[in-house]
Amino acid sequence: MTKDLRVNADRMLASFNQLTLFGATAEGGVHRPTFHEAHLAARRWFREEVERSGLEFRTDGAGNHSAFLPVVASPSGAKQSPPRNAEIASELSPLATTLLLGSHLDSVPNGGRFDGALGIIAALEVLRTVKESGSKLKVNLEAIDFTDEEGTLVGLLGSAALTGHLTPAMLQTPRGGRENLVEGMQRAGLSDESMLNAARPRESLAGYLELHIEQGKRLERAGINIGIVSAIVGIWSYRLSFIGRADHAGTTTMDDRLDASLAASAFTLGARELVVKDFPGCVVNVGKMDFAPGAFNIVPERVDLSLEFRSPDEEEFKRLDVALLELAGHEALRFGLALRVEFLGKHSPSLMSATVQRAYAEACEDVGLTHVSLTSGAGHDGQSFADVCPVGMIFVPSVAGASHSPREFTKWDDCVNGANVLLQAALKLSAE
Amino acid sequence: MTKDLRVNADRMLASFNQLTLFGATAEGGVHRPTFHEAHLAARRWFREEVERSGLEFRTDGAGNHSAFLPVVASPSGAKQSPPRNAEIASELSPLATTLLLGSHLDSVPNGGRFDGALGIIAALEVLRTVKESGSKLKVNLEAIDFTDEEGTLVGLLGSAALTGHLTPAMLQTPRGGRENLVEGMQRAGLSDESMLNAARPRESLAGYLELHIEQGKRLERAGINIGIVSAIVGIWSYRLSFIGRADHAGTTTMDDRLDASLAASAFTLGARELVVKDFPGCVVNVGKMDFAPGAFNIVPERVDLSLEFRSPDEEEFKRLDVALLELAGHEALRFGLALRVEFLGKHSPSLMSATVQRAYAEACEDVGLTHVSLTSGAGHDGQSFADVCPVGMIFVPSVAGASHSPREFTKWDDCVNGANVLLQAALKLSAE
Repeated sequence: MTKDLRVNADRMLASFNQLTLFGATAEGGVHRPTFHEAHLAARRWFREEVERSGLEFRTDGAGNHSAFLPVVASPSGAKQSPPRNAEIASELSPLATTLLLGSHLDSVPNGGRFDGALGIIAALEVLRTVKESGSKLKVNLEAIDFTDEEGTLVGLLGSAALTGHLTPAMLQTPRGGRENLVEGMQRAGLSDESMLNAARPRESLAGYLELHIEQGKRLERAGINIGIVSAIVGIWSYRLSFIGRADHAGTTTMDDRLDASLAASAFTLGARELVVKDFPGCVVNVGKMDFAPGAFNIVPERVDLSLEFRSPDEEEFKRLDVALLELAGHEALRFGLALRVEFLGKHSPSLMSATVQRAYAEACEDVGLTHVSLTSGAGHDGQSFADVCPVGMIFVPSVAGASHSPREFTKWDDCVNGANVLLQAALKLSAE
Repeated sequence: MTKDLRVNADRMLASFNQLTLFGATAEGGVHRPTFHEAHLAARRWFREEVERSGLEFRTDGAGNHSAFLPVVASPSGAKQSPPRNAEIASELSPLATTLLLGSHLDSVPNGGRFDGALGIIAALEVLRTVKESGSKLKVNLEAIDFTDEEGTLVGLLGSAALTGHLTPAMLQTPRGGRENLVEGMQRAGLSDESMLNAARPRESLAGYLELHIEQGKRLERAGINIGIVSAIVGIWSYRLSFIGRADHAGTTTMDDRLDASLAASAFTLGARELVVKDFPGCVVNVGKMDFAPGAFNIVPERVDLSLEFRSPDEEEFKRLDVALLELAGHEALRFGLALRVEFLGKHSPSLMSATVQRAYAEACEDVGLTHVSLTSGAGHDGQSFADVCPVGMIFVPSVAGASHSPREFTKWDDCVNGANVLLQAALKLSAE
């Protein structure tokens, strides 16, 4: 019986443990920024693991790496025979040929072992389990590791390329700097051209499913097994530059300075206050400031500030954008500084497919797990698919909500629960 | 007549213009951090210029470079024959053998052409003029370029070494980082040991004179030619580290963050307010913040803040120190952060010699220039000499007060005025 099919938890754990060795840090996390050596090594290991599993290995011009499990018999037959579970599969394109299950192997600097990695290991394990079971599917299954989800270079890079959302402009002004992108692509044997040519025909995409850790405390607090994501927050990022004047820090009176640090500091405090007071569904982060010239005895002429903010709602998002840029302008004016605003990128909030959410809910009930609907405060590759094909994500509990940190942890039973729900949902959406 | 002796303004200008080529920036300033290639090249040029002038070139274990003009006849005779101007020369040690005139060739990053450089060119020109005149002196004259005045590595490094104030501890935790110091010393052929062995016997030092640009607006506003420095402010520097927790910047609620940027920002704004309100004679600067891990999508775990503050008065200085560290502790506590305080160095306020100030005042009157007594808001190598031998500085007007910036400018007539006062004061303090 397909509903009774479960992943091999021990085999999955062995794979997960091997993966955590690449870029392992003394603090117990991993450091695998996109195209750094540890990231490339993890990808080489993934390729070997795919081949050891008897699955087909594939890669594309965006550097995405995949395990591929083709439809065994008469792939064109899907058109003729209606799917058994007609209600759930109705949203799938009749021409759809591949259901993607994925996540990413890159990490933020000094990140955790589960973010991205769990989704890859679970997707691979789903394919291994389905292959062993001999289940008949009407679509191909593909476990995919997307390039640069975390944004060391561009952010959601591999999924944007695959879904045709990547533009030359995004490659020219990436958030990590053009130079780092060019160097990284060279190390990985990629180019602007190959990236832009990695788009797949929309009709080849049956859907996209992803298992991820929650990265928050909601599931843990509520004691619920599985979170079914209803929407992914949108993310906007800017580089704000406050520009004053370099002066001698001993001989220039306090009143006579044009000190860029003052507006940068006031903006950082003000942005937090603004969000806490007026935008309770949103978050804001000043992740970095770069001071120039950056000497003890020179009044800072310029501070470049890395700004990112998120909202699950498009209208609230636009209001927050206006409010933050007004605040920056206000603080620059207050301290007599110039303000330069560099827009680095935007991902709109993304609604998840109702069909896929329903499949996840049924899968939870089949496996005997509790579930709840929630939004994702983090960006994910699923965003790239929201206007292309049915897409849905599930979360498993993060201990203490820790994320993007070596303290990131999810109990192994919860990881296996997530993999089984992913397996069952994939079967519901792809079974003949 | 010695009182009528003047420097050769054209020759001095030619030397100054050549010097500005080393590390010249597109903005019209110079970039000559200590032991960077441009700094070493400027020093090679200085050595050649000294030798072209028929003066003796000397260097020491701290990398200080000098032009040396020895007493022509019977150096030991100084003990027997009392100086002609008994009142002014009375403070000089009877064993004194060398009167130093100096400044520095290093610059802050992207600094100006006049800071340090004018003092070196003027001191060299004074020696050339005295040598040509055949004036008889009771002490040797030395035009000295001190290593690392600006603090790329340690700050006042060469003068501290020469006066015996340099300690091994200062070399172990320098403000620019130990690694940069070690690399720099290697490039210059120096070592900890040579630095610590560069101290000269106190009785060999007859005094130290320096000409410098004001780096403020007081002389320009008052329309006065020469500022005679009564005291140099003290400088304290710290590295303050605010330490919180790295978290995912999308999934961690605003209230659940331990964001190091908040205390760093609040401290920066609060420190300014504190000084403006309660310490009108002092200044404070946050010249740099370093964010870790420093990514768009991670809440900053740690911010290292470069803090420097100055006061001309020792008691006020101590009160400001306490107030700033209290403020840092308060802001860390308010945002739930740890605070690490690293003391990087202190120079106490330094009183200038009354004898030397009097010599400068008489020199101004001899040359026909207006003068005023003022304090120095900038640190200078003269501080190192304050407890060792008579020391005094003069300032010439800075256009618009610009300093540590490519906009730094002093009219050439003012530069020549300063050199002539330096010449006349040196003659008063050293003539037989």
